[in-house]
Amino acid sequence: MSDARFFRRSGPFPLAEVAAAVGGTLADGMDGERLIEDVAPLDGAGANDLSFLDNRKYIGAYEASKAGFCLVIQEFAERAPAGMAAVVCEAPYLAFALAARMFYPPAAPAPWISPDARIADSAVLGEGCRVEAFVVIGPGASIGARCHIESGASLGEGIVLGDDCRVGAGATLLCCLLGSRVSVDPGARVGTQGFGFAVGPRGPVRIPHTGRVVIEDDVEIGANTTIDRGTTGDTFIGRGTMIDNQVQIAHNVQIGRGCILAGQAGLAGSSQMGDYAMIGGKSGLANHVKLGKGARVGAQSGVADDLAEGGTYLGAPAIPIKDFWRQQVALRRLVRRGKGA
Amino acid sequence: MSDARFFRRSGPFPLAEVAAAVGGTLADGMDGERLIEDVAPLDGAGANDLSFLDNRKYIGAYEASKAGFCLVIQEFAERAPAGMAAVVCEAPYLAFALAARMFYPPAAPAPWISPDARIADSAVLGEGCRVEAFVVIGPGASIGARCHIESGASLGEGIVLGDDCRVGAGATLLCCLLGSRVSVDPGARVGTQGFGFAVGPRGPVRIPHTGRVVIEDDVEIGANTTIDRGTTGDTFIGRGTMIDNQVQIAHNVQIGRGCILAGQAGLAGSSQMGDYAMIGGKSGLANHVKLGKGARVGAQSGVADDLAEGGTYLGAPAIPIKDFWRQQVALRRLVRRGKGA
Amino acid sequence: MSDARFFRRSGPFPLAEVAAAVGGTLADGMDGERLIEDVAPLDGAGANDLSFLDNRKYIGAYEASKAGFCLVIQEFAERAPAGMAAVVCEAPYLAFALAARMFYPPAAPAPWISPDARIADSAVLGEGCRVEAFVVIGPGASIGARCHIESGASLGEGIVLGDDCRVGAGATLLCCLLGSRVSVDPGARVGTQGFGFAVGPRGPVRIPHTGRVVIEDDVEIGANTTIDRGTTGDTFIGRGTMIDNQVQIAHNVQIGRGCILAGQAGLAGSSQMGDYAMIGGKSGLANHVKLGKGARVGAQSGVADDLAEGGTYLGAPAIPIKDFWRQQVALRRLVRRGKGA
Repeated sequence: MSDARFFRRSGPFPLAEVAAAVGGTLADGMDGERLIEDVAPLDGAGANDLSFLDNRKYIGAYEASKAGFCLVIQEFAERAPAGMAAVVCEAPYLAFALAARMFYPPAAPAPWISPDARIADSAVLGEGCRVEAFVVIGPGASIGARCHIESGASLGEGIVLGDDCRVGAGATLLCCLLGSRVSVDPGARVGTQGFGFAVGPRGPVRIPHTGRVVIEDDVEIGANTTIDRGTTGDTFIGRGTMIDNQVQIAHNVQIGRGCILAGQAGLAGSSQMGDYAMIGGKSGLANHVKLGKGARVGAQSGVADDLAEGGTYLGAPAIPIKDFWRQQVALRRLVRRGKGA
Repeated sequence: MSDARFFRRSGPFPLAEVAAAVGGTLADGMDGERLIEDVAPLDGAGANDLSFLDNRKYIGAYEASKAGFCLVIQEFAERAPAGMAAVVCEAPYLAFALAARMFYPPAAPAPWISPDARIADSAVLGEGCRVEAFVVIGPGASIGARCHIESGASLGEGIVLGDDCRVGAGATLLCCLLGSRVSVDPGARVGTQGFGFAVGPRGPVRIPHTGRVVIEDDVEIGANTTIDRGTTGDTFIGRGTMIDNQVQIAHNVQIGRGCILAGQAGLAGSSQMGDYAMIGGKSGLANHVKLGKGARVGAQSGVADDLAEGGTYLGAPAIPIKDFWRQQVALRRLVRRGKGA
Repeated sequence: MSDARFFRRSGPFPLAEVAAAVGGTLADGMDGERLIEDVAPLDGAGANDLSFLDNRKYIGAYEASKAGFCLVIQEFAERAPAGMAAVVCEAPYLAFALAARMFYPPAAPAPWISPDARIADSAVLGEGCRVEAFVVIGPGASIGARCHIESGASLGEGIVLGDDCRVGAGATLLCCLLGSRVSVDPGARVGTQGFGFAVGPRGPVRIPHTGRVVIEDDVEIGANTTIDRGTTGDTFIGRGTMIDNQVQIAHNVQIGRGCILAGQAGLAGSSQMGDYAMIGGKSGLANHVKLGKGARVGAQSGVADDLAEGGTYLGAPAIPIKDFWRQQVALRRLVRRGKGA
């Protein structure tokens, strides 16, 4: 059960309605009228809660769960404990996400302009925005409708936000154009100057960064993530890309649509990710390298050269994942042989 | 000598009093009445300062030091330079920590509610709190006694803090319950939404994060560290755990008591650390893996599978440390052989 | 062309004047009177823009570029497309940096003290400072001339800034002395307490951190970077050192002059970098190790022991780069052999 201090719940909804909405199938004899009150994890769920099983590792928790309802694949349905209605679906986690959005639908912010916000006269705000205390919005900024700017955020001169964006507490936006429904978590820095200087005879010469950051619709940016603007030209992030916390994106990086960047990943200057590419936690792309469309790079890897479309890679330097594991096996064998000799 | 612009010192204290408090032994003939004025590093200490030697690497600095007093183990006492009173103890760094706390005792903050803080009417603050300028505290928040909320921090609706907590400048607390004596350094983000979405046919579907972050007493959280709340259920951090700067802790992570997480470590979703486990700088735990009680993982390692209690591990993937170094030796031998052939 | 919402441009300047300023040579027959209006990347430049080619990878973009002017080395000059004046120089990127500074010269901030800043009576500010809204400056702080303190930054009691410093939005400065022309990007934390505690029988004992951070002239500090103060003694950063985003610098670290630290690098407690040393993205130095003067460490490396001056190192643990690549080759051969057997 979610904590009422933090969350407001919709519902309850009848089982049949939830199952229909998420693409789940009721078994014969299940009572579609039973009401579901909330979503919950396997080990915290009660008789009126809906849970899910998506990882073989948690079958024990599933069999011990007191959840009244659970989304599972066919294979596990018969192992449901007594009292649980096991709702079969193809992708339990996706179904759970859809169900959770019924109980906790995203809501537009309550419109309000705090008297403690400092908004330049020449800035333009759309209908229904919420701008909290200690926010600063610079001259010429253009903010779309229903945007929520949380306390202490700083939006620089001339920046553009589409509709329904959220900017978290204390975040900074500079020299950037954002689409609609972009979410920026607290403490993220977008549009800061890049780490660009040329090494001259009397030390480094900083190059002015006169580019921008351009972010398309439906992008999410995690807490304390940093995204530098282009040196000249733009740093670009395509539609629907998801970026976790503490990711570093350097000047002139080009990220396609629907990409996923896990926590603490880092993309060096002018590196590229093709559409739907994924990069694991703590992994990095070197300067100027390109990760192909749909390619996947595992955690803590380092991409030192261009990697082909659709492949899966691991290691530093990153190589095809099969080769990585073969190397690990060979190393282990080598050690055993060394000990035997 | 500490800089009086930044720190206020107690004392001086007689040598005998300090030695007694930290478990040190005076050698025959030492004058227990001599006054110690401050603590200082070996290379900066003067005749009235107490220093310590805890790392063989610094014996040169020790022998050259002008410190009047030094905490050392028995073995090094006789190498003390002329004029230095070498105070023998078993654990010099621990003894030094205790001594330093005599000279710089933690003090309660000077109570004050800045007129520039924005505190919701329904928020409750305990006795003796200090709330600085540009702080925002949301409706229903509950803050214990003697808490110090530094400038620009943002505390969301319904959050709970125990007594004697400190929240650093510009930090963000959302959807979280904190115990007493919890310290949150500047720029940390606690309770942000997790990186959780299910991949559907039309792209990722964000899952509402309706869990919390629960932090027990005496936990320290470093600067710019990020801790996401649970998807459903809680992200949990046990009593006395120490977390360094720029650590990333994802949704539903479970950390036991007395754990240590060094800088830039990262714990992926639903990973676990048993009590008193340690993880080195830049190391990571993959989704759902468990690091056993008291296990230690070296720097820049990647824990890809559950690791047993009490072991010491290194590498990516992390393996027992002896195996890691054997592999390094085998690799070096392999290269030499390759060159010889 | 830079976006006028964000940047103000100087110029135009005649080709001959730019070439002279950056050390470029005009080919016979080039018209030195032609006006250059802006700097731009190869793929975005037009007939009045100056671009550069510094990486073989972009020769295709160079040959297809519509740039009217381009800085190149001799070798590539003859491959310039029709209509482009190829200006030959020895170091095109350095030349481009110098040219870009003609079009976008660094400007002093417009002096202003926001009525929404909270500046202690005993703080001293030099001439021509700009202090934006929601900034807090503590008692006894000393700020030089023409400093620019962006919105929401927090400058603690007693801190010292030289002339012409910039402190980014939401950054925090504590217990530190900064030279002149130091640039601190948004969200950086300087002078926070270190991750220092001694492990005692009843758990960790926090050691008071009574040291400082001392930063010399012309240092740059990236967004969301964290720099802890010394335990006792100082954390030190030498003149002209460049630090990227999300770098972690622990207590008592000593960094020489002209060093370069790329994004997400991490320096553990008391580690050292000699003058002009470089450390790649995501790389780390272990506690107490020293990286020699002018040494270079590649990305995602881990320096576990002292490394000699002037060398180039890679890997975790970091070894001479040639050895690293030899190991990679040997590993690949080992796998092939294993498959053949």
